[in-house]
Amino acid sequence: MDNINILNQCAKIWGEMKAKKPLVYHITNYVAINEQAHTTLTIGARPVMAYSPEESEEMCSISNALLLNIGTPSIGELYAMKKALRKANEMNIPVLLDPVGYGATEFRNMVVHDLLNSGMFCVIKGNCGEIAALSGISGAVSGVDSIFKERSIIKQVVMGLAEKYKSIIIATGEEDLISNGKSSFLVKGGSKMLTYLTGSGCMVGTIISSLLAVSDNYLEASLTGLMAMKIAGKRAELNSKGIGSYKANLYDRLFELKEEAFIEEGEIEKWD
Amino acid sequence: MDNINILNQCAKIWGEMKAKKPLVYHITNYVAINEQAHTTLTIGARPVMAYSPEESEEMCSISNALLLNIGTPSIGELYAMKKALRKANEMNIPVLLDPVGYGATEFRNMVVHDLLNSGMFCVIKGNCGEIAALSGISGAVSGVDSIFKERSIIKQVVMGLAEKYKSIIIATGEEDLISNGKSSFLVKGGSKMLTYLTGSGCMVGTIISSLLAVSDNYLEASLTGLMAMKIAGKRAELNSKGIGSYKANLYDRLFELKEEAFIEEGEIEKWD
Amino acid sequence: MDNINILNQCAKIWGEMKAKKPLVYHITNYVAINEQAHTTLTIGARPVMAYSPEESEEMCSISNALLLNIGTPSIGELYAMKKALRKANEMNIPVLLDPVGYGATEFRNMVVHDLLNSGMFCVIKGNCGEIAALSGISGAVSGVDSIFKERSIIKQVVMGLAEKYKSIIIATGEEDLISNGKSSFLVKGGSKMLTYLTGSGCMVGTIISSLLAVSDNYLEASLTGLMAMKIAGKRAELNSKGIGSYKANLYDRLFELKEEAFIEEGEIEKWD
Repeated sequence: MDNINILNQCAKIWGEMKAKKPLVYHITNYVAINEQAHTTLTIGARPVMAYSPEESEEMCSISNALLLNIGTPSIGELYAMKKALRKANEMNIPVLLDPVGYGATEFRNMVVHDLLNSGMFCVIKGNCGEIAALSGISGAVSGVDSIFKERSIIKQVVMGLAEKYKSIIIATGEEDLISNGKSSFLVKGGSKMLTYLTGSGCMVGTIISSLLAVSDNYLEASLTGLMAMKIAGKRAELNSKGIGSYKANLYDRLFELKEEAFIEEGEIEKWD
Repeated sequence: MDNINILNQCAKIWGEMKAKKPLVYHITNYVAINEQAHTTLTIGARPVMAYSPEESEEMCSISNALLLNIGTPSIGELYAMKKALRKANEMNIPVLLDPVGYGATEFRNMVVHDLLNSGMFCVIKGNCGEIAALSGISGAVSGVDSIFKERSIIKQVVMGLAEKYKSIIIATGEEDLISNGKSSFLVKGGSKMLTYLTGSGCMVGTIISSLLAVSDNYLEASLTGLMAMKIAGKRAELNSKGIGSYKANLYDRLFELKEEAFIEEGEIEKWD
Repeated sequence: MDNINILNQCAKIWGEMKAKKPLVYHITNYVAINEQAHTTLTIGARPVMAYSPEESEEMCSISNALLLNIGTPSIGELYAMKKALRKANEMNIPVLLDPVGYGATEFRNMVVHDLLNSGMFCVIKGNCGEIAALSGISGAVSGVDSIFKERSIIKQVVMGLAEKYKSIIIATGEEDLISNGKSSFLVKGGSKMLTYLTGSGCMVGTIISSLLAVSDNYLEASLTGLMAMKIAGKRAELNSKGIGSYKANLYDRLFELKEEAFIEEGEIEKWD
C-alpha cells in the first residue's frame, strides 16, 4: 500500500474517532493523569479514570479502549490493571500498554512482565530506551528519558518484540518507530519542544488508545495517533515563546486537528 | 424575591468570599486535584488537600468548607471522607458532595450511598446523568458524561432528591438546574468550550464550596458559584484559539471576576 | 564574599545544572506533581516520580537528587520516603525536605519528625508559617498558607533550626529567608502573582533540588533556586492578564532563563 493510501486511511480513522467519541479508560500515573484526561477531551473522545480493583473490571466493560500506563506503579494499581486487562481481552476491547520507566527499577520490570503474562495487548508503546530495555538490552535507561540511539539495533528490537508479544510495538523519539512484526514505519516531523513537555509521551498513548477504539487496523490507528502528535506538535511551535505558551498552543492545535491534516502534513516512511 | 434581588445577594456573597478567604478542604480525584487547587486560589480562597484518614478529621476541623468528590474512589479514601464528614457535621461546617461517575459502576454507587448514609450534605452536585442515576433512573450514564436530556423528568428528579436528602441538588449541563426542594432555578449562559475542559465540573464544585463557607443561604451561594463559572466561561471565549488558550483565559477571567459581573451578566431564571 | 561574587557563583551553578541535566527523584503530593515534573523539564533537568516502597530505594540510587514533599502524606508513602532517604544518605545524594502544611495536623507533624529522625537533609524548605511551626511556635499555620509575619522571630527560628538539623533552612514568602546557621540571606524581588499560583512553593523545591544535584555548596545552590523563581516570576508579570496567562508566562520565562539573569537581576541581601 502506498503512503498516500495509508494517510487517507489515517485521516478516515481520525474522522471516525471524532464521530464516535469513544470512552477511553485510563489506569495511569499521577503525573500525566490530568494531561491525559485533557487530551482525550481535546481530540473529541471521552476519558474515564479509575484505580480501584473494586471497579476496574466493570469500568472496563463500559469502555471502548483501555490504556495501562505504569508511570507511578503500586501493587494495588497492578491488581486493578490485571482485572481490567482480563475483562478487556474477554470482551475484545483494545488495550495499550505504556511501560513508563521500564528498566529503571526491578519493581517496574516485574510489574510490566506481570501484565505481559496476564493478557494480550494491541499496542506496546514506550520511548526508545524503554523498548530497548524491554528486549533485554541493558544499561539503556535512565529515568523515563531515552538515551538509546542505535537505530539499527532498535529495528531488530522492535521487530522482535512485535513477534514475541503479538503486538504492535512503538518506540517514540525524534522519529517514532512502529512495527507489527511485518510492516514497519518511521513517523517524522514533530518538534523538539515536545521533549520539554512533561507527559507528552503519555498523551500520545491516550491519542492512540482513542483511535484503537474505532479501527480494527491497529497499525493504521497507531500511525494516526503518532502523526496527530507530530503534526500538532510542529504547528504549535508557531507563536510559542517558551514551553508554557507551547503547551497551550499544542492543545489548541490538537483541538482543531482535522482529517486533511494527515494527508497534507503526515510524514511517514516505510521502514525497510 | 425578584431575580435582580437574588443577583444582588449573589454579588454580595462573592465579595464576602473574597474578603474572608475561606480554607476549603478537598478530598477529591487525582485528575482534577491540581485544577481545583488552582481554582481555589484563583478566586481568592485557600485550598487544602489531604487523603489520609489519619488527618482528615483534624484537617476538616480547621477548614471553612469540605468538598467530597469521588472521581477516583478507593476504600481508604472513603474512610477518610467519612471521618471528615462526621467532623464537619458536628462542627456545622458546610459539605458538598460531587458523585462523579455515579451509575458507572456498582462500586461508585456503593461509595456514594455509604457517604449519603453517613452524614448530611448542604449541596449534592453532579451532571444531569449522574443526578438522574442517583434518583434510580438507569441506563443514563456513560463515564462521566451526561447523555440524559429529558428536561421534564430531570425537574422531578432534582426536586425529589432535594427532599429526600434535605440538600440542595444541582444538575449541571448546558443549563444548570438547581433546587432546594421548594425554589428551583435554571442558570444559563456559559460556553460550549467548558465541555471540552477536563475537570470543569469539579472546578464548579470548588467554587461553590468556597461560597458555602461564607453564606448560610446555600441556595444563593450555589447560584453564585454556578454563575461565576458561566460568566467567566463565556468571557473566556474571547481571544481563545482552542482549548489550550481557552483554559488559560478561563483562569484569567475567574481571577478578575468582580461582584458587578453577577448583576450585569448573571443569567438565572426561576424554574416553575 | 561580596554579593556580586555570590551571584557569579549562582550563575555558574545554573549553567552546570543545564549542562548536566540531573535526574531529580520526587516523592511529592498529588496536587503539584504535574507542575513539578513540568518545572524540572522546563529548566533543563529530568524528573522521575515513584511512590512505591518496592522501588524507592532503587529509584533513588540512580538519581542525582531526592525531593521529599509531604503535601498529601500517607503511611505507605512515608515508608517509601524513609527507604529513599536512607539510600540517599548512604550514597551521598542530596535530599530536600518540603514539610507542606506542617503544623496543620498532628499526623503531618508526626510524618515530618519521623523523616527528620530517619536521616539527614541538605535543605529544609517551607513557607514562614511552616518553618515557624517546625520550631515550636504554635498557632501560626492555617492550611499551607503563611500568616506569620514577625521578621525578628523568624530569623531566630531559621538560625536555630539550621543548627539543630545541620541543614540549610529556607522560609519562603514575599522575601525568602535562608540560613545555614552561619550565613544568612534575604532573597527579594519576585511577584505577588506567585501567591495565587498553586504549587509555586513546590516548584521552588524542584528547582533547588535540581541545583543541589550539581553543586556541593548547598547554600549557593539554594540561593540560585530561590532567585530563579523570583526572576522568572517577576518577568512573567509582563503580558499577563490574570493567573492563567501568568502561569504560561512563568514557564516561558523559566524555560529561557540564562546565567546572566542571576548577575543582572538577582536580588540578594546579606542578612545580619
